Amino acid sequence: MRSFRITIMLKPGVLDAPGQAVERGLGALGYQVGQVRVGKVIELILPDGERATADEMCARFLANPLIETWAIEEIVQGATQ
Amino acid sequence: MRSFRITIMLKPGVLDAPGQAVERGLGALGYQVGQVRVGKVIELILPDGERATADEMCARFLANPLIETWAIEEIVQGATQ
Repeated sequence: MRSFRITIMLKPGVLDAPGQAVERGLGALGYQVGQVRVGKVIELILPDGERATADEMCARFLANPLIETWAIEEIVQGATQ
Repeated sequence: MRSFRITIMLKPGVLDAPGQAVERGLGALGYQVGQVRVGKVIELILPDGERATADEMCARFLANPLIETWAIEEIVQGATQ
């Protein structure tokens, strides 16, 4: 039983419309920001505790391997490894 | 000029409909998962490099302080600190 944090981002070349919207919105508020990218984060508990299972879930269901990449971190007692 | 990764999650008590949908979807595929929470991650470059600016952006625009919490990490050469 381990907890994982899965971060899913669009690949660098893929148009990130939410990222552009955030960049414009922050600009309208007077903040100078650059290269804004928006992604998803999914935290979950896996009873089998296998990182490979989390990776398989990303490839099959959680992410679109054509346009997205993902990173899997284990969550250990509130810290991230 | 520093890069930050902002992770925005719903507060523990708040209903996370996307999280429930993911949990059900993974269950339908035969994966046993628990306590799925879905959030947003925003990566950006701040020319002023101030973490406090990122925090202010979250409170004013990126997150809803009533129902969401956020964490800010600096992105250093591909690694996370």
